Amino acid sequence: MEYSLLPVEEMVARPLSVQTLIACLGMYDWSLAVKFLLHMLTFGSAIYSSGSERHLKYLPKIFNMDIFGCFAVTELSHGSNAKAIRTTAHYDPATEEFIIHSPDFEAAKFWVGNMGKTATHAVVFAQLYTPGGQCHGLHSFVVQIRNTKTLLPMPGVMVGDIGKKLGLNGVDNGFAMFHKVRIPRQDLLNRTGDVTPEGTYITPFKDDRQRFGASLGTLSFGRVAIVGMSIVNLKLALSIALRFSATRCQFGPSDGEEVPVLEYQTQQWRLLPYLAAAYALDHFSKSLFLDLAELQQGLMGTDQGARQAELGREIHALASAGKPLASWTAQRGIQECREACGGHGYLAVNRLGDLRNDNDPNCTYEGDNNILLQQTSSYLLSLLACHVQGGARFESPLRTVDFLQAYPDILGQRFTCPSVDSCLDSSVPLAAYEWLVCYLLRESYQKLNQEKRSGSNDFEARNNSQVYYCHPLALAFLELTVVRRFHEYTHQPHVPPPLRAVLGRLSALYALWSLSQHTALLYQGGYFSGEQAGKMIQNAILDLCSQLKDDAVALVDVIAPPDFVLDSPIGRADGELYKNLWTAVLLESRVLERPSWWSEFSVHKPRIGSLKSKL
Amino acid sequence: MEYSLLPVEEMVARPLSVQTLIACLGMYDWSLAVKFLLHMLTFGSAIYSSGSERHLKYLPKIFNMDIFGCFAVTELSHGSNAKAIRTTAHYDPATEEFIIHSPDFEAAKFWVGNMGKTATHAVVFAQLYTPGGQCHGLHSFVVQIRNTKTLLPMPGVMVGDIGKKLGLNGVDNGFAMFHKVRIPRQDLLNRTGDVTPEGTYITPFKDDRQRFGASLGTLSFGRVAIVGMSIVNLKLALSIALRFSATRCQFGPSDGEEVPVLEYQTQQWRLLPYLAAAYALDHFSKSLFLDLAELQQGLMGTDQGARQAELGREIHALASAGKPLASWTAQRGIQECREACGGHGYLAVNRLGDLRNDNDPNCTYEGDNNILLQQTSSYLLSLLACHVQGGARFESPLRTVDFLQAYPDILGQRFTCPSVDSCLDSSVPLAAYEWLVCYLLRESYQKLNQEKRSGSNDFEARNNSQVYYCHPLALAFLELTVVRRFHEYTHQPHVPPPLRAVLGRLSALYALWSLSQHTALLYQGGYFSGEQAGKMIQNAILDLCSQLKDDAVALVDVIAPPDFVLDSPIGRADGELYKNLWTAVLLESRVLERPSWWSEFSVHKPRIGSLKSKL
Repeated sequence: MEYSLLPVEEMVARPLSVQTLIACLGMYDWSLAVKFLLHMLTFGSAIYSSGSERHLKYLPKIFNMDIFGCFAVTELSHGSNAKAIRTTAHYDPATEEFIIHSPDFEAAKFWVGNMGKTATHAVVFAQLYTPGGQCHGLHSFVVQIRNTKTLLPMPGVMVGDIGKKLGLNGVDNGFAMFHKVRIPRQDLLNRTGDVTPEGTYITPFKDDRQRFGASLGTLSFGRVAIVGMSIVNLKLALSIALRFSATRCQFGPSDGEEVPVLEYQTQQWRLLPYLAAAYALDHFSKSLFLDLAELQQGLMGTDQGARQAELGREIHALASAGKPLASWTAQRGIQECREACGGHGYLAVNRLGDLRNDNDPNCTYEGDNNILLQQTSSYLLSLLACHVQGGARFESPLRTVDFLQAYPDILGQRFTCPSVDSCLDSSVPLAAYEWLVCYLLRESYQKLNQEKRSGSNDFEARNNSQVYYCHPLALAFLELTVVRRFHEYTHQPHVPPPLRAVLGRLSALYALWSLSQHTALLYQGGYFSGEQAGKMIQNAILDLCSQLKDDAVALVDVIAPPDFVLDSPIGRADGELYKNLWTAVLLESRVLERPSWWSEFSVHKPRIGSLKSKL
Repeated sequence: MEYSLLPVEEMVARPLSVQTLIACLGMYDWSLAVKFLLHMLTFGSAIYSSGSERHLKYLPKIFNMDIFGCFAVTELSHGSNAKAIRTTAHYDPATEEFIIHSPDFEAAKFWVGNMGKTATHAVVFAQLYTPGGQCHGLHSFVVQIRNTKTLLPMPGVMVGDIGKKLGLNGVDNGFAMFHKVRIPRQDLLNRTGDVTPEGTYITPFKDDRQRFGASLGTLSFGRVAIVGMSIVNLKLALSIALRFSATRCQFGPSDGEEVPVLEYQTQQWRLLPYLAAAYALDHFSKSLFLDLAELQQGLMGTDQGARQAELGREIHALASAGKPLASWTAQRGIQECREACGGHGYLAVNRLGDLRNDNDPNCTYEGDNNILLQQTSSYLLSLLACHVQGGARFESPLRTVDFLQAYPDILGQRFTCPSVDSCLDSSVPLAAYEWLVCYLLRESYQKLNQEKRSGSNDFEARNNSQVYYCHPLALAFLELTVVRRFHEYTHQPHVPPPLRAVLGRLSALYALWSLSQHTALLYQGGYFSGEQAGKMIQNAILDLCSQLKDDAVALVDVIAPPDFVLDSPIGRADGELYKNLWTAVLLESRVLERPSWWSEFSVHKPRIGSLKSKL
């Protein structure tokens, strides 16, 4: 607040600066970054983009933190199925007010960030009822939940903190129950639907489904932000683990001689693919953020045409698989980093635990990863259906699906690399990924149709086509997109020649390593055949690891924040591993003291067997 | 202590009761279990098995907790490479004492459990020097580090706590530096080597390597114990996640109707294979514990013959891959359980975070998983070398390697299942695993030889053959052993018929699901060919999940402890998910109160931009 690091006008002028601010705050402390993001961006832009002119009065109060906000969708018994939320908002024309009410504790708002202790206002999602009892579905309302000066709850609001979490404990996640809380009619955020003073419901949308989709549009931003947040976590963990690995020596070719653990092929193979992933996904994250900024600028303007709608769908598909890919890659990468640092990785002061714990919710909030992936596969399957049924071309504003136009040809292609050397460029895995996405798309399409033919309804057919079909389809499509974007970025002519080689290796390593997780499918579908195909990919991965290991420390120096931000004794840039760790341990409070309960342990201790049954 | 839950005589009479006690204490609180285990079993049995008659005086003191012990091997700069430990023990014949000394802080004992605040005595590993300066390698010594009454450090000992860890914070892991601490000659644990009063070194072993191996023998117990501890964690996490999944409803075939998330194929596929793994690995864990008990009873007796040595090697190989397999399966399974419970899985009160954090060190302590696996692959490769070079038969006391005798035949076998139905028994994956282990053994052997032919020394050749070769070999061999033991157990004629079907499904599901992680290799090596092989395994896994889902709650009721021990509101046996969670949240202290710093947040708050540069 005091530094006013990013004024609103700068946010608007340079959208990427928002991502940069979140990343910088998050590198220092994720709770701080998340509290800021929830207030300024989630709460603030919900009001801005779901409300209308009459809500603009809230914006300066938000920027000055005269009010502090939270975004209240989920309830104790409903998260993913947001549509089934049970909080109600009945309109009373006599007073021109809405009555916000929680029918029972299972409908309590729950998990809401900033709500636990600090928010004064909430954007509350509730089922809107007009007089006569008709329900018009989910709408959002601005509800004051605490006095802005005393932070005491408003009448009728029971609000509290849901308690300790696995991480992010600087964020106060909360719950709230509303007992017939009255708010002015004007505090309905009315972009997608409104109620007249007399109590008539009006909406520009034809059906509830369409209106519901538009009202949840603000969630897209969160998913794209999480891609960036996950990658920050991966970068931090890698900075720690690779600096540790370059300085920790253990074993050696002869007694008395020890080599840094990064010299071991196993250690390289455990960590360097994640380094490559951090680079490739970082580029993807930034480019997706800019795509989203373009979409949002279009939404603010007058361009509501077909391209804008298509762009929205495409970005939704990319964000819906991007968040799972980035958060899971970070989750696994951090765990590998923690294990790769051995016991020292388990010491809290070295921060790998906090990174893992703070990254963890990225896998489940703002849309559970497994459920989100269905959005991406549905997007691809609907394109295929339009193509099959109506001959529509595969094309999209960001051109991520254009290659599918050639899918029959692509499905006929086979892996033809003659040697390991020819696999060391990302064009090889790129071609394999195109085949893989086409294969999984066709397989998923056939599986869905087969389920329906054998009598399943749509709900069952979709559920029974996720594992092994739609789920890997969505991930493979996103990996292909990440690989393609990073491939194109690293192969641009303006990349300085000294960087070209190392960036090319990172690109190839990420692509091959990601692809190698699908080797079984490549064989199963016939793209690979014979023993050499699989081995060539394995050897290429190991070759690239070996080529990159001497650059590893320089590559983390590029992405690591200053030591005081990284805040990990074993990850400091000076490489003085043991001095830093020993100093940190000795600086802990009471490190050399007896515990306060020493005499209970040594003198007044219980007697062995004193409570043993004498029967 | 007061209940004297397991007197020593019972431990000796019924070895499995030791594992049961650790499991029961650990289900309640791992720190308690680990402190007990480190004192009674690690410290106690180190003295018993590495010492001699003159050390028996310590045993009653250990059992009565008149002294409290720790086991001090690792140092700040040495863990895995224990042989390179730098603490010294110089013998002084003038006083008949050893002088224990830490040359510098990098040689400080570090990470030692119980040492941080509570241990009064330590078994300290140090390099033994005799007068004249000859080093005889690593030996262990009983060193008093704290006064037993005051818990203050002994003269010359700097001892403290290494600080907060990611979990297990009820265990006081510590460090110690010794400044020329003198201990009586008799406190050398002298089973593998001794020093006469005059200062002459004597040992029954021919070389240092052999003696070193024998002196670290006590570590085997720890690894076998960790297999059991990991499986306990997996059981607890599954109890929580499956009960949650059976009661949490979300979405449904039509609006207003919701189904339990366990009805979704994806949720079944995420959790039920881990349930099968818990059952299969639990059986393995118990059987391995009994094997170890047999070995130790042999060691105590007079049977030091060839079979005993072979049994020792085989158990070492099983424990060295068993710990990695069990700890990683638990690590991944707990993470899947946490994510499968969505946001509620991230709430600390539900315990999945503690389970993950307390299980985590199982992956790296008592031998890092990646390094331990080399012990198992080396065992198999040495058997193959003896067979190739000298025609030795593949046979071992527990018969885990006997099938290798037929390896040329096995390598010629191919997957021949005609239908999914015929894959639903664990005999199918059992045959595939035999092929896989033979394939990986041959591949690893050839890779090692190829490395050596191309000029690598032994150290390099071994390091460059881990990824894709020796590492998966060790895991596949262990998986085969687990699958075989559980297959045989579930197919015994005395299994009651009502249980036979469900146990058979668990056995088949674990085997097929584990095997499916190697599908790429099965294709690469030619055991699988064509699209149907892979699909048949996938369909069999999904079929078994579907067949098991209605039994899932009963199957966790079998392995779950009572609610007060499981200690997870969303995992309680009554299935009252929301009531239990809501109650737990409202019982937290200060849940509805303002934070103490409320006025700093709402009234006396910093002013936006007050510190912004005016330049």
